[in-house]
Amino acid sequence: MARRAKESGEDRLIGRYFKPLARHPGALGLVDDAALLAPPPRHSLVVTADAIVGGVHFFKDDPPDAVARKALRVNLSDLAAKGAKPAGFVLTLAIPKSVDDRWLSAFARGLGADARIYACPLLGGDTVRTPGPVTISITAFGTVPKRSMVRRDGARVGDIVAVTGTIGDGAIGLQLRLDAGAARRWGLDGAARKHLLDRYLLPQPRSAIAEVLRRHASGGMDVSDGLAGDLAKLCRASDVGAEVEVARVPMSKAACRAVEANPKLLETALTGGDDFEVLATIPPRRWASFAAAARRVRMPVTAIGRITKGQGARFLGADGMALPFVRTSFSHF
Amino acid sequence: MARRAKESGEDRLIGRYFKPLARHPGALGLVDDAALLAPPPRHSLVVTADAIVGGVHFFKDDPPDAVARKALRVNLSDLAAKGAKPAGFVLTLAIPKSVDDRWLSAFARGLGADARIYACPLLGGDTVRTPGPVTISITAFGTVPKRSMVRRDGARVGDIVAVTGTIGDGAIGLQLRLDAGAARRWGLDGAARKHLLDRYLLPQPRSAIAEVLRRHASGGMDVSDGLAGDLAKLCRASDVGAEVEVARVPMSKAACRAVEANPKLLETALTGGDDFEVLATIPPRRWASFAAAARRVRMPVTAIGRITKGQGARFLGADGMALPFVRTSFSHF
Repeated sequence: MARRAKESGEDRLIGRYFKPLARHPGALGLVDDAALLAPPPRHSLVVTADAIVGGVHFFKDDPPDAVARKALRVNLSDLAAKGAKPAGFVLTLAIPKSVDDRWLSAFARGLGADARIYACPLLGGDTVRTPGPVTISITAFGTVPKRSMVRRDGARVGDIVAVTGTIGDGAIGLQLRLDAGAARRWGLDGAARKHLLDRYLLPQPRSAIAEVLRRHASGGMDVSDGLAGDLAKLCRASDVGAEVEVARVPMSKAACRAVEANPKLLETALTGGDDFEVLATIPPRRWASFAAAARRVRMPVTAIGRITKGQGARFLGADGMALPFVRTSFSHF
Repeated sequence: MARRAKESGEDRLIGRYFKPLARHPGALGLVDDAALLAPPPRHSLVVTADAIVGGVHFFKDDPPDAVARKALRVNLSDLAAKGAKPAGFVLTLAIPKSVDDRWLSAFARGLGADARIYACPLLGGDTVRTPGPVTISITAFGTVPKRSMVRRDGARVGDIVAVTGTIGDGAIGLQLRLDAGAARRWGLDGAARKHLLDRYLLPQPRSAIAEVLRRHASGGMDVSDGLAGDLAKLCRASDVGAEVEVARVPMSKAACRAVEANPKLLETALTGGDDFEVLATIPPRRWASFAAAARRVRMPVTAIGRITKGQGARFLGADGMALPFVRTSFSHF
């Protein structure tokens, strides 16, 4: 009377939704307790971890595939800024009873799509119940040749401060998400509104520039908590200061339009976070080759200022005076 | 008028409580977005992730230092069962507003104590707010010589099924935690009650036996969701069956006493989980050297059965008949 061993609910859930994503040989098909990972010879692993929580980092009615992609992409953004090539990730997913098969199926679909796009396969993880909101914690791994990770503490006086893409879209997009009437008040058309909302919903990690950074940047990090605060963090880690000309900070047409209509949004754009662009410092003698290499990978980069002696990041207005921000970065604490 | 850049609340929290734990050079003092990790030459990293949630995996009034240690130890238990030597961990911690400095301070103290005891330093992580319960997700890393990880799928017909320590203490301890009058009804004295409660509160990962397993075991995993269900999982992964003699399953004096008083607790002990012992399969020709090596590291190991052809794990009572469990393992799903 040998009983056929029954799978638990968790095993069924993993088998159904997550096993198809575990294509890396080290994932062992998710049937083991652990995964195996080895960087190539003379490489190190870069390890980063970020968690997102329903009602805090995303809206409960955000599409589950976008939630999954955001959870992975905020980590991929860190890897890109460190100059690392994605190698895989582990996921711990805490879900309330209200989460149904439909939600999980869409979540896994989004996660799988991004795992393929960014060549960052699922290696393992854990699924648990929570009486609280959906909580997604991802630890992501990348590889870099030894001693070549782009660090926060590498900025030197005289280096050029650069950013990828555009700044402020995510933070202004969040305002639009919170205030349904804002788009009309700010005179945004449908395309501008959609651009900003999309930039909040779905970060675009700058993976394409990782190797360029590794070759040319003295320091760097991703911009996730607001440019002003994140630059200040980089300055603290490197024991330097920085001066940024606000007029040079690249902003999308949609963000510019919103700021024109409501000048207070300039501070939102510079301090609000959710940019997921790369902030990097480039020695002046490397600027031309950095910019050329960025062009080759079709990544817009903009010089916005300089690393200086001293402490803190000053954001200079058209009059040359530092803007007095109410707060320099986003923090839930 | 350079403003001194202010630290955010999260930075203060990390600097105060977690930076002192980040002694590994790859942790970069937690001032970077990412950590660096490289296994020794010809080694792989073993990666495991487990999350625990307040009100689900621990009680909200459990001492915060014990909560921290449990969160780390459930991962260390996985590493031990895989034959891996701890290398470090990353932590994502989601905390509600009700968590105060005193709680965090005790949490960090417990985490730091175990990081030292198990030589498993904090490498990085993320701290976020949640409207839900405290949620702790840890991804832990270990190292093994390449191709030597103890896997779930390595058990072969004829192998001896062995476990470390004693089975059932954690699950019976949980019953005592839930039912204040149970200890008296089951005739447990203060020491027996404390033993069982402690085994539930604080897992004892079997790190000492990791290398012994790597040298002698054909397969293995830790027992976290109940011996019966976990052995069934190992059988499924290895495409074999197993027969266990229940009388040979090692149980503590306290657990035996409880089972004598309430025979239903036998099923609780075999299926209830929270053991954090190692379940391993040992080829018969290696048994004597395995047992001797385990003795040298002072780790009790007991042969409880055999791997068989077929499917499923049968637990045989004194009459030779398989016990009919209501369910074979613990699952929140």
